[in-house]
Amino acid sequence: METIISPSNKTVKHIKSLYQKKNRDSYREIIIEGLKNINEAISSEWKIETIVFSETVYRSEDFDFLKNSCVLKKIKTIIVSEKLFNDICDTENSQGILAVLKIPDKSSFGAVTADDGFDLGNHRKIVILDSLQDPGNMGTVIRTADAFGADMVIVSEGCVDVYNPKTLRAAMGSIFHVPVYKSYDIEKLIGELKGLGIKILAAHLNGENFEDKDFIGNVGDTSSIAVIIGNEANGIRDSIAAAADRLIKIPMPGKAESLNASVAAGILMYEIFLSKT
Amino acid sequence: METIISPSNKTVKHIKSLYQKKNRDSYREIIIEGLKNINEAISSEWKIETIVFSETVYRSEDFDFLKNSCVLKKIKTIIVSEKLFNDICDTENSQGILAVLKIPDKSSFGAVTADDGFDLGNHRKIVILDSLQDPGNMGTVIRTADAFGADMVIVSEGCVDVYNPKTLRAAMGSIFHVPVYKSYDIEKLIGELKGLGIKILAAHLNGENFEDKDFIGNVGDTSSIAVIIGNEANGIRDSIAAAADRLIKIPMPGKAESLNASVAAGILMYEIFLSKT
Repeated sequence: METIISPSNKTVKHIKSLYQKKNRDSYREIIIEGLKNINEAISSEWKIETIVFSETVYRSEDFDFLKNSCVLKKIKTIIVSEKLFNDICDTENSQGILAVLKIPDKSSFGAVTADDGFDLGNHRKIVILDSLQDPGNMGTVIRTADAFGADMVIVSEGCVDVYNPKTLRAAMGSIFHVPVYKSYDIEKLIGELKGLGIKILAAHLNGENFEDKDFIGNVGDTSSIAVIIGNEANGIRDSIAAAADRLIKIPMPGKAESLNASVAAGILMYEIFLSKT
Repeated sequence: METIISPSNKTVKHIKSLYQKKNRDSYREIIIEGLKNINEAISSEWKIETIVFSETVYRSEDFDFLKNSCVLKKIKTIIVSEKLFNDICDTENSQGILAVLKIPDKSSFGAVTADDGFDLGNHRKIVILDSLQDPGNMGTVIRTADAFGADMVIVSEGCVDVYNPKTLRAAMGSIFHVPVYKSYDIEKLIGELKGLGIKILAAHLNGENFEDKDFIGNVGDTSSIAVIIGNEANGIRDSIAAAADRLIKIPMPGKAESLNASVAAGILMYEIFLSKT
């Protein structure tokens, strides 16, 4: 197979354009990077359009299994020079491999609107992200939600794009395990969740100290809980905090005033979701 | 004060050079970004050499307090155009402010060698990082260690540079609260810590499940504990794992195979350090 070296190659230009949200939205395609993510995508229901190998990676025997999968599943593959790969993908220390996926028509990244009356079914461990801005944090939260068996992640309109390549990279394939929904009206959604008997806990610097599992017991029915995590700098919006059942705070005896949002989310999910699995 | 616009200005060139480790090492200077970090530095024992403002930030009244502090403490300030600021500092969404600090002769980032026989004193809650590679993760771990009252962080030789601007950014000023030491021989150091009666717990995918605080009780004396966190992809080196008292694993009932290193560190510190404060 020929190695592409020209940045003006049509396929290369198209792929590069997907690093911008407006193009992801219009083409309904996303980019995932790295072997782990690609392997997860291959075993998922998502359709892989193209896999891009850097020349060195394509020649390495370590990737023979993946190359065979591509042939077997008739996935289009292209090889590009190292220089061009680094030009396409702005990741430092990239693994020299990325894939373009088609967003499924019925994507788990579907929009949840309050009017959808969406079926929660058995989704009883929910993570809600309010205006989370950092793509790495969002991906890390999705990965942690997956590890701790959360049933879904709901992101507010003000959150960073779930399809952001940095989000997908940090999610390490968990995006293919945990459904992520977008809500255009978190306050209304919280009302609906409460109506379904789901307790809403919100991480908040003015919250009650969250010291041990007894706190969870105090919440009442612990089988259905949603945890809300807010923006890195500003926390949860007041209207959302007001809608929650309880505001909780992770005790911090040291000097730091707050925790990184994905660390706080991790500790809360660990305490809350693990106490009932 | 005149606004600098030329990238070939001598001071600007010098500051820009500090984004490279070799220059930080040779000049013994580091860069910190953002108001939060700079405020923490001002109230610390570190010496601020220069503060760089972008033009807009300098003109904003929000920064009057800081500008007055600079005058009062005779800190050199320079103003650069927006374009030049973004050229110096490769951060997306920078706050338009950064500072150059002199590394103190007796820096808390001092080197710990096994031969130093360094005095642990009351340092009884210790975090050890083995070959942690991501600067964001390292900064986040330092921030969390600060929040949960850890007494020190020790980094192995194979870790990313503590002075990396991304590490310092993620640490959100906690670098000025928690001493960070570098060890050139972690195995030997672990031996020394054990000799001092400190229990060594290591996060390991083959470890025992770390389910609740009873586990901590089982460790024995819970007043002196060191937690080791390993490399993002490969975990803790075998020789280090072999030297630990116990290998522990955070239970993950979901599909993700592992947690982000800074999330795992956060959960372990939360359980271990908070159970005895």
